[in-house]
Amino acid sequence: MRVAVDAMGGDKAPHEIIKGSILAAQQLRDDDIILVGDENTLSRELNTYGAIPKNITIHHASQIVQMDDPATYSIRQKINSSITQSIELVAHGEACAVVSAGHTGATVAASTLHLRTLKGVRRPGIAAALPTRQGVCLIIDIGANIACKPLHLFQYGVMAAVYYRCIFGIENPKVGLLNIGEEDAKGNDLVKDTFTLLSNSNLNFVGNVEGREIFDNKANIVVCEGFVGNIILKFAEGLSMSLLSTIKTEALKSFWTKLGLWLCKPAFEPLKAKMDFAEYGGAPLLGVNGICIICHGRSDSKAIQNAIKVALKLSKYKVNEHIVSEFEKINTLTAHVV
Amino acid sequence: MRVAVDAMGGDKAPHEIIKGSILAAQQLRDDDIILVGDENTLSRELNTYGAIPKNITIHHASQIVQMDDPATYSIRQKINSSITQSIELVAHGEACAVVSAGHTGATVAASTLHLRTLKGVRRPGIAAALPTRQGVCLIIDIGANIACKPLHLFQYGVMAAVYYRCIFGIENPKVGLLNIGEEDAKGNDLVKDTFTLLSNSNLNFVGNVEGREIFDNKANIVVCEGFVGNIILKFAEGLSMSLLSTIKTEALKSFWTKLGLWLCKPAFEPLKAKMDFAEYGGAPLLGVNGICIICHGRSDSKAIQNAIKVALKLSKYKVNEHIVSEFEKINTLTAHVV
Repeated sequence: MRVAVDAMGGDKAPHEIIKGSILAAQQLRDDDIILVGDENTLSRELNTYGAIPKNITIHHASQIVQMDDPATYSIRQKINSSITQSIELVAHGEACAVVSAGHTGATVAASTLHLRTLKGVRRPGIAAALPTRQGVCLIIDIGANIACKPLHLFQYGVMAAVYYRCIFGIENPKVGLLNIGEEDAKGNDLVKDTFTLLSNSNLNFVGNVEGREIFDNKANIVVCEGFVGNIILKFAEGLSMSLLSTIKTEALKSFWTKLGLWLCKPAFEPLKAKMDFAEYGGAPLLGVNGICIICHGRSDSKAIQNAIKVALKLSKYKVNEHIVSEFEKINTLTAHVV
Repeated sequence: MRVAVDAMGGDKAPHEIIKGSILAAQQLRDDDIILVGDENTLSRELNTYGAIPKNITIHHASQIVQMDDPATYSIRQKINSSITQSIELVAHGEACAVVSAGHTGATVAASTLHLRTLKGVRRPGIAAALPTRQGVCLIIDIGANIACKPLHLFQYGVMAAVYYRCIFGIENPKVGLLNIGEEDAKGNDLVKDTFTLLSNSNLNFVGNVEGREIFDNKANIVVCEGFVGNIILKFAEGLSMSLLSTIKTEALKSFWTKLGLWLCKPAFEPLKAKMDFAEYGGAPLLGVNGICIICHGRSDSKAIQNAIKVALKLSKYKVNEHIVSEFEKINTLTAHVV
């Protein structure tokens, strides 16, 4: 199988993207990586590594989507961008999956346009892993769709359950609905109607999940609209960094607390590892007809390496076939829902 | 001035509510506290303290709003509840402010019904303080209004700026709009239209604020709809507890990290103080014709004591008169907005 990697996307592109791709390629036996981007730049960068793994090739793309390009502009005016060209490789069957740490909006727009959605899927959604006390909680959607209907949210639950099964090996993951109270009747119209759809489904629906319960493993998957998901994911990043920096600043104020912090260091390591998004190998855009892994803009080689692994795992598990088969089962149930 | 305290509301009522009221009363010279609740229960509890401050009286209320009572039911069927009776005292001019750690929905509904909104205000909103690296960020709304229009959000900005000036002494606080990106054109229709209103106002509007920027002091006030505000506030609570408990669990695993944690303890104290909602004296429901302070359900005596102080400070500052005067200035600006 072949994974197309957008080598020009991300704060640390192309250096870390290429490094991550080489690390991944070295561990692959029968799979290949296609680096997509400016041929000269990529060749020069690859040559610094000496022997290039045979399973890495270059696919030329002359343009780059800049972070301040509007997503719609990028798909119309930059059809030769590394993002669009990577996705085109999947659309034409030349790759099974795409990995990009570039412009998220452009990746979502180009994937939806060129790969199209899977049969029955109304809107694709991005599922991101949030570390909790005892594992991870998958939040879907974190920003692909900010004008949600109940059916979109319901479908996110179905798709995320298939994905969770594939990646985390839990057969019947608990699905929750992000809301402002635990009671069934809480929330705005969107969540109330979604609650009904989820309650009547064959998902392992555990009801409403409040903000604080995300960390209590009440649910393996938490469904929310992209606007809310995006805000809480970034909020989690800001809050974690703020807490840790406050502890550090305070600890550096005296000799004994400084010593204490030094001794305590190993206790912070598992936390840092947990909080390191690079461990999770990016967030899949679920619902498009192809595998698309969206990585954090700050992704380093480890993040890219893991994202490539996840992309291949999803392809081999045939996650999209499983999603389509789930949708065939539920389509009769939701056929009347607009 | 007199503050009505709902003595039956909150997880630790009436014990901690009464204790907090006594602590506050002992520090007041010319102000009084009216404890609202079941007369027998309150008298019995007060008697355990020996000498009761002369500036504390009891106002009998025979009913209690339970946490699982729907808000609409409570205002219709429990008109003799401690919440409604406390608010009635303000409505009838017998108290200048109400403090409650009881059912938030019932407090919002009863306040809106009995106090009415201030002239020009469309919807009241709850403003809560979130500790950041260098101070606090005020989030409005955190759950009073989950069906927001742009004008509601805009008005939250105006009211919160007056409140911030009063409590934190900053003349022209920075107001931001919670959104999924920094660029002006980001977000759903609600935030886009709110962005325009805020941009054209005389507020110190700093533009869109992303989830992670809340902790960077980009804005003193962050405006959002109640659904999102409620989720992130509870999310912050869950994430902070999860992070600290992970550090503790890991540190207790070996002798040296355990010793380190013990030495490091003083470094955690400022963080704990920052995170302690009791320090902030509750969250005001801004926009009703009276002062209403909503406390956390888990409020202890310190939280109640601080909430009473805040209530009196707002009354003396005549925060509502300032809000009305601000609204008179802006009404010509927003007269065409529905």
